[in-house]
Amino acid sequence: MKRFTYDDIMAMVKEDRLHFINAVPGFKSANLIGTKDLNNCYNLAVFSSVIHLGSHPPYLGFVTRPTTVPRHTLDNILNTAYYTINHIHKDFYPSAHQTSAKYERGESEFDKVGLTPEPMSSIAVPYVQEASVKIGMEYVERHHITANDTLLVVGRIIEILIQESIIQDDHAIDLDKAGTVAISGIEGYHQTHLLDQLGYAQPGDPIPEPKQKGNE
Amino acid sequence: MKRFTYDDIMAMVKEDRLHFINAVPGFKSANLIGTKDLNNCYNLAVFSSVIHLGSHPPYLGFVTRPTTVPRHTLDNILNTAYYTINHIHKDFYPSAHQTSAKYERGESEFDKVGLTPEPMSSIAVPYVQEASVKIGMEYVERHHITANDTLLVVGRIIEILIQESIIQDDHAIDLDKAGTVAISGIEGYHQTHLLDQLGYAQPGDPIPEPKQKGNE
Repeated sequence: MKRFTYDDIMAMVKEDRLHFINAVPGFKSANLIGTKDLNNCYNLAVFSSVIHLGSHPPYLGFVTRPTTVPRHTLDNILNTAYYTINHIHKDFYPSAHQTSAKYERGESEFDKVGLTPEPMSSIAVPYVQEASVKIGMEYVERHHITANDTLLVVGRIIEILIQESIIQDDHAIDLDKAGTVAISGIEGYHQTHLLDQLGYAQPGDPIPEPKQKGNE
Repeated sequence: MKRFTYDDIMAMVKEDRLHFINAVPGFKSANLIGTKDLNNCYNLAVFSSVIHLGSHPPYLGFVTRPTTVPRHTLDNILNTAYYTINHIHKDFYPSAHQTSAKYERGESEFDKVGLTPEPMSSIAVPYVQEASVKIGMEYVERHHITANDTLLVVGRIIEILIQESIIQDDHAIDLDKAGTVAISGIEGYHQTHLLDQLGYAQPGDPIPEPKQKGNE
Protein backbone atom coordinates (compact mmCIF):
# COMPACT_ATOMS: atom_id res chain seq x y z
CA MET A 1 0.00 0.00 0.00
CA LYS A 2 1.17 3.52 -0.75
CA ARG A 3 0.79 5.99 2.11
CA PHE A 4 -0.07 9.67 1.65
CA THR A 5 0.20 11.83 4.76
CA TYR A 6 -1.73 15.06 5.30
CA ASP A 7 1.42 16.98 4.33
CA ASP A 8 1.79 14.91 1.13
CA ILE A 9 -1.80 15.75 0.20
CA MET A 10 -1.38 19.47 0.94
CA ALA A 11 1.81 19.54 -1.17
CA MET A 12 0.16 18.01 -4.26
CA VAL A 13 -0.43 19.99 -7.43
CA LYS A 14 -3.97 21.41 -7.13
CA GLU A 15 -5.47 19.44 -10.05
CA ASP A 16 -4.01 16.16 -8.78
CA ARG A 17 -5.32 16.82 -5.28
CA LEU A 18 -8.82 17.60 -6.60
CA HIS A 19 -8.91 14.32 -8.54
CA PHE A 20 -7.52 12.32 -5.64
CA ILE A 21 -9.47 13.70 -2.68
CA ASN A 22 -12.76 13.84 -4.58
CA ALA A 23 -12.40 10.10 -5.26
CA VAL A 24 -11.44 8.89 -1.77
CA PRO A 25 -14.97 8.79 -0.27
CA GLY A 26 -16.05 6.30 -2.98
CA PHE A 27 -19.01 6.60 -5.36
CA LYS A 28 -21.25 9.65 -5.30
CA SER A 29 -24.80 10.37 -6.38
CA ALA A 30 -25.23 12.13 -9.73
CA ASN A 31 -27.96 14.75 -9.82
CA LEU A 32 -29.00 17.93 -11.57
CA ILE A 33 -30.44 20.64 -9.35
CA GLY A 34 -33.00 22.85 -11.09
CA THR A 35 -33.80 26.35 -9.81
CA LYS A 36 -35.27 29.65 -10.98
CA ASP A 37 -33.92 33.14 -10.39
CA LEU A 38 -35.95 36.24 -9.54
CA ASN A 39 -36.18 37.06 -13.28
CA ASN A 40 -37.68 33.62 -13.95
CA CYS A 41 -34.51 32.40 -15.67
CA TYR A 42 -34.09 28.63 -15.16
CA ASN A 43 -30.78 27.37 -13.76
CA LEU A 44 -29.45 23.81 -13.85
CA ALA A 45 -26.29 22.53 -12.15
CA VAL A 46 -24.64 19.13 -11.65
CA PHE A 47 -24.10 18.05 -8.03
CA SER A 48 -22.41 14.91 -6.70
CA SER A 49 -23.13 15.65 -3.04
CA VAL A 50 -26.87 14.98 -2.66
CA ILE A 51 -27.38 12.71 0.36
CA HIS A 52 -30.19 11.09 2.31
CA LEU A 53 -30.76 12.69 5.72
CA GLY A 54 -33.99 11.08 6.87
CA SER A 55 -37.10 9.25 5.69
CA HIS A 56 -39.81 10.33 8.18
CA PRO A 57 -40.12 13.15 7.38
CA PRO A 58 -38.21 12.82 4.09
CA TYR A 59 -35.12 15.08 3.99
CA LEU A 60 -32.21 15.34 1.59
CA GLY A 61 -29.05 17.43 1.85
CA PHE A 62 -26.37 18.68 -0.50
CA VAL A 63 -23.08 20.52 -0.07
CA THR A 64 -22.06 23.72 -1.83
CA ARG A 65 -19.53 26.49 -1.44
CA PRO A 66 -21.08 29.86 -0.68
CA THR A 67 -18.39 31.86 -2.43
CA THR A 68 -17.63 29.91 -5.61
CA VAL A 69 -19.52 28.43 -8.56
CA PRO A 70 -22.23 27.11 -8.64
CA ARG A 71 -23.48 29.90 -6.42
CA HIS A 72 -26.45 30.59 -8.73
CA THR A 73 -28.11 27.46 -7.38
CA LEU A 74 -27.72 28.56 -3.76
CA ASP A 75 -28.85 32.15 -4.43
CA ASN A 76 -31.94 30.91 -6.26
CA ILE A 77 -32.87 28.48 -3.49
CA LEU A 78 -32.52 31.15 -0.83
CA ASN A 79 -34.59 33.56 -2.95
CA THR A 80 -37.41 31.21 -3.98
CA ALA A 81 -37.28 28.42 -1.32
CA TYR A 82 -37.76 25.68 -3.96
CA TYR A 83 -35.55 23.44 -6.09
CA THR A 84 -35.70 20.14 -7.96
CA ILE A 85 -33.30 17.20 -7.82
CA ASN A 86 -33.17 15.11 -11.01
CA HIS A 87 -31.22 11.85 -11.47
CA ILE A 88 -28.55 11.94 -14.16
CA HIS A 89 -29.27 9.18 -16.69
CA LYS A 90 -26.66 7.31 -18.74
CA ASP A 91 -28.27 8.72 -21.90
CA PHE A 92 -27.58 12.36 -21.02
CA TYR A 93 -24.60 12.47 -18.60
CA PRO A 94 -22.45 14.54 -21.05
CA SER A 95 -25.13 17.27 -21.11
CA ALA A 96 -25.44 17.09 -17.33
CA HIS A 97 -21.65 17.47 -16.94
CA GLN A 98 -21.63 20.48 -19.28
CA THR A 99 -23.83 22.41 -16.78
CA SER A 100 -20.65 22.78 -14.69
CA ALA A 101 -19.30 25.32 -17.21
CA LYS A 102 -19.37 28.88 -15.89
CA TYR A 103 -22.28 30.37 -17.79
CA GLU A 104 -23.29 33.94 -17.11
CA ARG A 105 -26.16 34.83 -14.83
CA GLY A 106 -29.23 35.10 -17.08
CA GLU A 107 -28.09 32.28 -19.38
CA SER A 108 -30.11 29.11 -18.83
CA GLU A 109 -28.06 25.91 -18.70
CA PHE A 110 -31.14 24.05 -19.99
CA ASP A 111 -30.76 25.88 -23.32
CA LYS A 112 -26.98 25.66 -23.36
CA VAL A 113 -26.75 21.89 -22.81
CA GLY A 114 -29.93 20.77 -24.59
CA LEU A 115 -32.03 19.47 -21.70
CA THR A 116 -35.74 20.25 -21.44
CA PRO A 117 -37.18 22.28 -18.56
CA GLU A 118 -40.45 20.77 -17.36
CA PRO A 119 -42.52 23.24 -15.33
CA MET A 120 -45.22 21.71 -13.11
CA SER A 121 -48.13 23.35 -11.34
CA SER A 122 -47.09 21.65 -8.07
CA ILE A 123 -43.75 23.49 -7.70
CA ALA A 124 -42.46 26.86 -8.92
CA VAL A 125 -39.17 25.50 -10.32
CA PRO A 126 -38.41 23.30 -13.35
CA TYR A 127 -37.76 19.57 -13.47
CA VAL A 128 -35.54 17.97 -16.10
CA GLN A 129 -38.01 16.31 -18.47
CA GLU A 130 -35.50 13.63 -19.53
CA ALA A 131 -34.89 12.36 -15.96
CA SER A 132 -36.51 9.11 -14.76
CA VAL A 133 -36.48 10.19 -11.08
CA LYS A 134 -37.39 13.80 -10.18
CA ILE A 135 -37.70 15.18 -6.67
CA GLY A 136 -39.44 18.42 -5.70
CA MET A 137 -37.71 20.10 -2.72
CA GLU A 138 -38.53 22.85 -0.24
CA TYR A 139 -35.61 24.59 1.50
CA VAL A 140 -35.49 23.99 5.29
CA GLU A 141 -32.15 25.04 6.79
CA ARG A 142 -28.44 25.35 6.12
CA HIS A 143 -25.31 24.63 8.15
CA HIS A 144 -22.04 26.43 7.74
CA ILE A 145 -19.10 24.04 7.96
CA THR A 146 -16.59 26.43 9.44
CA ALA A 147 -13.61 24.12 8.90
CA ASN A 148 -13.59 24.84 5.17
CA ASP A 149 -16.33 27.39 4.52
CA THR A 150 -18.85 25.04 2.87
CA LEU A 151 -22.61 24.81 3.38
CA LEU A 152 -24.85 21.82 3.93
CA VAL A 153 -28.25 22.75 2.48
CA VAL A 154 -31.16 20.78 3.97
CA GLY A 155 -34.51 20.40 2.22
CA ARG A 156 -37.79 18.57 2.61
CA ILE A 157 -39.13 16.35 -0.19
CA ILE A 158 -42.51 17.71 -1.26
CA GLU A 159 -43.09 15.32 -4.16
CA ILE A 160 -41.40 12.58 -6.18
CA LEU A 161 -42.06 11.91 -9.87
CA ILE A 162 -40.81 8.51 -10.95
CA GLN A 163 -41.22 5.93 -13.71
CA GLU A 164 -43.52 3.37 -12.15
CA SER A 165 -41.66 0.45 -13.78
CA ILE A 166 -38.50 1.05 -11.71
CA ILE A 167 -40.23 0.78 -8.31
CA GLN A 168 -39.77 -2.69 -6.85
CA ASP A 169 -42.35 -4.57 -4.78
CA ASP A 170 -40.58 -3.53 -1.55
CA HIS A 171 -40.59 0.12 -2.79
CA ALA A 172 -36.82 0.12 -3.28
CA ILE A 173 -35.93 1.80 -6.59
CA ASP A 174 -34.14 -0.25 -9.26
CA LEU A 175 -31.43 2.31 -9.97
CA ASP A 176 -29.76 0.07 -12.59
CA LYS A 177 -33.01 -0.08 -14.57
CA ALA A 178 -33.55 3.65 -13.95
CA GLY A 179 -30.33 4.30 -15.87
CA THR A 180 -29.04 6.42 -13.00
CA VAL A 181 -25.25 6.85 -13.07
CA ALA A 182 -22.74 7.11 -10.20
CA ILE A 183 -19.90 9.64 -10.10
CA SER A 184 -16.28 9.04 -9.11
CA GLY A 185 -13.90 11.91 -8.46
CA ILE A 186 -14.86 15.07 -10.33
CA GLU A 187 -15.53 13.71 -13.81
CA GLY A 188 -15.95 9.92 -13.84
CA TYR A 189 -19.42 8.65 -14.79
CA HIS A 190 -20.20 4.98 -14.04
CA GLN A 191 -22.93 2.58 -15.01
CA THR A 192 -23.90 0.06 -12.33
CA HIS A 193 -24.89 -3.57 -11.96
CA LEU A 194 -26.65 -4.91 -8.86
CA LEU A 195 -24.54 -7.56 -7.16
CA ASP A 196 -26.88 -8.33 -4.32
CA GLN A 197 -29.75 -7.08 -2.24
CA LEU A 198 -29.16 -8.07 1.37
CA GLY A 199 -31.65 -8.11 4.23
CA TYR A 200 -31.89 -6.58 7.68
CA ALA A 201 -28.84 -7.93 9.57
CA GLN A 202 -29.18 -9.44 13.03
CA PRO A 203 -26.47 -10.82 15.35
CA GLY A 204 -25.82 -14.50 14.61
CA ASP A 205 -27.01 -14.34 10.99
CA PRO A 206 -24.93 -16.48 8.62
CA ILE A 207 -22.89 -14.30 6.26
CA PRO A 208 -23.54 -15.18 2.58
CA GLU A 209 -20.77 -15.57 0.01
CA PRO A 210 -20.22 -12.41 -2.06
CA LYS A 211 -21.80 -12.59 -5.51
CA GLN A 212 -19.60 -11.69 -8.45
CA LYS A 213 -20.61 -10.16 -11.74
CA GLY A 214 -20.71 -12.89 -14.35
CA ASN A 215 -21.20 -15.90 -12.09
CA GLU A 216 -24.70 -15.30 -10.81
CA MET B 1 -44.65 9.09 -14.34
CA LYS B 2 -46.11 8.18 -10.98
CA ARG B 3 -46.36 11.06 -8.48
CA PHE B 4 -45.89 10.66 -4.73
CA THR B 5 -46.76 13.71 -2.64
CA TYR B 6 -45.29 14.46 0.79
CA ASP B 7 -48.52 13.11 2.34
CA ASP B 8 -48.29 9.90 0.27
CA ILE B 9 -44.73 9.39 1.54
CA MET B 10 -45.67 10.05 5.16
CA ALA B 11 -48.58 7.59 4.87
CA MET B 12 -46.41 4.71 3.56
CA VAL B 13 -45.69 1.62 5.63
CA LYS B 14 -42.39 2.33 7.45
CA GLU B 15 -40.36 -0.39 5.68
CA ASP B 16 -41.55 0.72 2.23
CA ARG B 17 -40.74 4.35 3.01
CA LEU B 18 -37.23 3.43 4.22
CA HIS B 19 -36.52 1.54 0.98
CA PHE B 20 -38.01 4.28 -1.19
CA ILE B 21 -36.59 7.42 0.39
CA ASN B 22 -33.14 5.92 0.93
CA ALA B 23 -32.98 5.24 -2.82
CA VAL B 24 -34.19 8.60 -4.17
CA PRO B 25 -30.87 10.51 -3.85
CA GLY B 26 -29.19 7.96 -6.18
CA PHE B 27 -26.05 5.94 -5.52
CA LYS B 28 -24.20 6.22 -2.22
CA SER B 29 -20.66 5.57 -1.09
CA ALA B 30 -20.04 2.28 0.72
CA ASN B 31 -17.64 2.49 3.65
CA LEU B 32 -16.78 0.86 6.94
CA ILE B 33 -15.93 3.22 9.79
CA GLY B 34 -13.45 1.79 12.30
CA THR B 35 -13.23 3.12 15.84
CA LYS B 36 -12.02 2.09 19.30
CA ASP B 37 -13.84 2.49 22.61
CA LEU B 38 -12.27 3.57 25.91
CA ASN B 39 -11.71 -0.13 26.80
CA ASN B 40 -9.76 -0.61 23.55
CA CYS B 41 -12.53 -2.67 21.97
CA TYR B 42 -12.58 -2.17 18.18
CA ASN B 43 -15.86 -1.18 16.55
CA LEU B 44 -16.75 -1.40 12.86
CA ALA B 45 -19.92 -0.07 11.19
CA VAL B 46 -21.20 0.25 7.63
CA PHE B 47 -22.04 3.80 6.45
CA SER B 48 -23.50 4.94 3.13
CA SER B 49 -23.29 8.66 3.93
CA VAL B 50 -19.57 9.47 3.69
CA ILE B 51 -19.17 12.56 1.47
CA HIS B 52 -16.43 14.84 0.20
CA LEU B 53 -16.45 18.29 1.82
CA GLY B 54 -13.21 19.81 0.59
CA SER B 55 -9.80 19.01 -0.86
CA HIS B 56 -7.56 21.78 0.52
CA PRO B 57 -7.49 21.01 3.36
CA PRO B 58 -8.94 17.53 2.83
CA TYR B 59 -12.22 17.06 4.72
CA LEU B 60 -14.86 14.34 4.65
CA GLY B 61 -18.24 14.20 6.37
CA PHE B 62 -20.75 11.54 7.30
CA VAL B 63 -24.26 11.57 8.73
CA THR B 64 -25.44 9.69 11.80
CA ARG B 65 -28.32 9.75 14.26
CA PRO B 66 -27.25 10.66 17.78
CA THR B 67 -29.95 8.56 19.44
CA THR B 68 -30.07 5.35 17.43
CA VAL B 69 -27.69 2.65 16.22
CA PRO B 70 -24.87 2.87 15.23
CA ARG B 71 -24.23 5.23 18.11
CA HIS B 72 -21.10 3.29 19.20
CA THR B 73 -19.26 4.86 16.27
CA LEU B 74 -20.19 8.40 17.29
CA ASP B 75 -19.43 7.83 20.99
CA ASN B 76 -16.04 6.39 20.14
CA ILE B 77 -15.14 9.26 17.81
CA LEU B 78 -16.10 11.86 20.41
CA ASN B 79 -14.10 9.97 23.06
CA THR B 80 -10.92 9.29 21.05
CA ALA B 81 -11.04 11.93 18.26
CA TYR B 82 -9.94 9.38 15.62
CA TYR B 83 -11.60 7.03 13.14
CA THR B 84 -10.85 5.22 9.91
CA ILE B 85 -12.90 5.09 6.69
CA ASN B 86 -12.42 1.94 4.62
CA HIS B 87 -13.90 1.25 1.16
CA ILE B 88 -16.23 -1.73 0.96
CA HIS B 89 -14.90 -4.14 -1.68
CA LYS B 90 -17.01 -6.47 -3.82
CA ASP B 91 -15.22 -9.43 -2.21
CA PHE B 92 -16.42 -8.65 1.32
CA TYR B 93 -19.66 -6.60 1.06
CA PRO B 94 -21.73 -9.30 2.88
CA SER B 95 -19.39 -9.07 5.90
CA ALA B 96 -19.51 -5.28 5.74
CA HIS B 97 -23.34 -5.32 5.68
CA GLN B 98 -23.43 -7.67 8.68
CA THR B 99 -21.77 -4.95 10.83
CA SER B 100 -25.20 -3.24 10.81
CA ALA B 101 -26.52 -5.92 13.20
CA LYS B 102 -27.02 -4.63 16.73
CA TYR B 103 -24.09 -6.20 18.56
CA GLU B 104 -23.61 -5.43 22.24
CA ARG B 105 -21.14 -2.84 23.44
CA GLY B 106 -17.88 -4.70 24.08
CA GLU B 107 -18.40 -7.11 21.15
CA SER B 108 -16.11 -6.28 18.23
CA GLU B 109 -17.78 -6.39 14.81
CA PHE B 110 -14.37 -7.29 13.34
CA ASP B 111 -14.57 -10.66 15.14
CA LYS B 112 -18.27 -11.14 14.46
CA VAL B 113 -18.12 -10.60 10.69
CA GLY B 114 -14.66 -11.97 9.95
CA LEU B 115 -12.78 -8.85 8.89
CA THR B 116 -9.24 -8.17 10.10
CA PRO B 117 -8.40 -5.14 12.27
CA GLU B 118 -5.14 -3.55 11.14
CA PRO B 119 -3.62 -1.33 13.82
CA MET B 120 -1.05 1.19 12.60
CA SER B 121 1.45 3.27 14.56
CA SER B 122 0.23 6.41 12.73
CA ILE B 123 -3.32 6.39 14.17
CA ALA B 124 -4.86 5.00 17.37
CA VAL B 125 -7.78 3.24 15.64
CA PRO B 126 -7.92 0.15 13.39
CA TYR B 127 -8.09 -0.01 9.61
CA VAL B 128 -9.80 -2.87 7.77
CA GLN B 129 -6.88 -4.92 6.45
CA GLU B 130 -8.94 -6.26 3.49
CA ALA B 131 -9.80 -2.76 2.13
CA SER B 132 -7.98 -1.36 -0.91
CA VAL B 133 -8.56 2.28 0.12
CA LYS B 134 -8.18 3.26 3.81
CA ILE B 135 -8.45 6.76 5.19
CA GLY B 136 -7.23 7.92 8.60
CA MET B 137 -9.46 10.66 10.05
CA GLU B 138 -9.28 13.19 12.87
CA TYR B 139 -12.56 14.58 14.22
CA VAL B 140 -13.05 18.32 13.59
CA GLU B 141 -16.64 19.42 14.23
CA ARG B 142 -20.27 18.29 14.14
CA HIS B 143 -23.50 19.95 13.03
CA HIS B 144 -26.89 19.15 14.45
CA ILE B 145 -29.54 19.05 11.73
CA THR B 146 -32.46 20.22 13.80
CA ALA B 147 -35.08 19.36 11.17
CA ASN B 148 -34.75 15.64 11.89
CA ASP B 149 -32.25 15.29 14.73
CA THR B 150 -29.30 13.96 12.71
CA LEU B 151 -25.65 14.91 12.92
CA LEU B 152 -23.13 15.75 10.20
CA VAL B 153 -19.72 14.70 11.53
CA VAL B 154 -16.80 16.53 9.91
CA GLY B 155 -13.25 15.19 9.93
CA ARG B 156 -9.84 15.97 8.51
CA ILE B 157 -7.93 13.36 6.47
CA ILE B 158 -4.63 12.69 8.23
CA GLU B 159 -3.45 9.88 5.95
CA ILE B 160 -4.56 7.71 3.04
CA LEU B 161 -3.39 4.13 2.47
CA ILE B 162 -4.11 2.93 -1.04
CA GLN B 163 -3.09 0.24 -3.53
CA GLU B 164 -0.70 2.07 -5.83
CA SER B 165 -2.00 0.26 -8.94
CA ILE B 166 -5.43 1.95 -8.71
CA ILE B 167 -4.09 5.52 -8.79
CA GLN B 168 -4.31 6.94 -12.31
CA ASP B 169 -1.79 9.32 -13.88
CA ASP B 170 -4.03 12.31 -13.08
CA HIS B 171 -4.30 11.06 -9.45
CA ALA B 172 -7.97 10.12 -9.89
CA ILE B 173 -8.65 6.72 -8.30
CA ASP B 174 -9.85 3.89 -10.53
CA LEU B 175 -12.76 2.83 -8.29
CA ASP B 176 -13.83 0.04 -10.69
CA LYS B 177 -10.38 -1.53 -10.45
CA ALA B 178 -10.35 -0.88 -6.69
CA GLY B 179 -13.40 -3.16 -6.42
CA THR B 180 -15.24 -0.47 -4.47
CA VAL B 181 -19.02 -0.99 -4.49
CA ALA B 182 -21.86 1.56 -4.54
CA ILE B 183 -24.96 1.30 -2.36
CA SER B 184 -28.59 1.87 -3.39
CA GLY B 185 -31.34 2.20 -0.81
CA ILE B 186 -30.54 0.45 2.44
CA GLU B 187 -29.30 -2.92 1.21
CA GLY B 188 -28.45 -2.87 -2.50
CA TYR B 189 -24.77 -3.40 -3.38
CA HIS B 190 -23.67 -2.55 -6.91
CA GLN B 191 -20.58 -3.17 -8.99
CA THR B 192 -19.64 -0.39 -11.39
CA HIS B 193 -18.30 0.11 -14.89
CA LEU B 194 -16.76 3.41 -16.04
CA LEU B 195 -18.73 4.89 -18.93
CA ASP B 196 -16.65 7.98 -19.41
CA GLN B 197 -14.20 10.38 -17.87
CA LEU B 198 -15.09 13.90 -18.95
CA GLY B 199 -12.97 17.02 -18.72
CA TYR B 200 -13.30 20.48 -17.19
CA ALA B 201 -16.35 21.99 -18.88
CA GLN B 202 -16.25 25.49 -20.38
CA PRO B 203 -19.02 27.48 -22.08
CA GLY B 204 -19.14 26.68 -25.79
CA ASP B 205 -17.57 23.23 -25.47
CA PRO B 206 -19.10 20.65 -27.82
CA ILE B 207 -21.10 18.06 -25.88
CA PRO B 208 -19.94 14.50 -26.66
CA GLU B 209 -22.33 11.63 -27.36
CA PRO B 210 -23.00 9.48 -24.28
CA LYS B 211 -21.03 6.22 -24.25
CA GLN B 212 -22.96 3.04 -23.59
CA LYS B 213 -21.75 -0.12 -21.95
CA GLY B 214 -21.05 -2.67 -24.64
CA ASN B 215 -20.46 -0.35 -27.60
CA GLU B 216 -17.25 1.37 -26.59
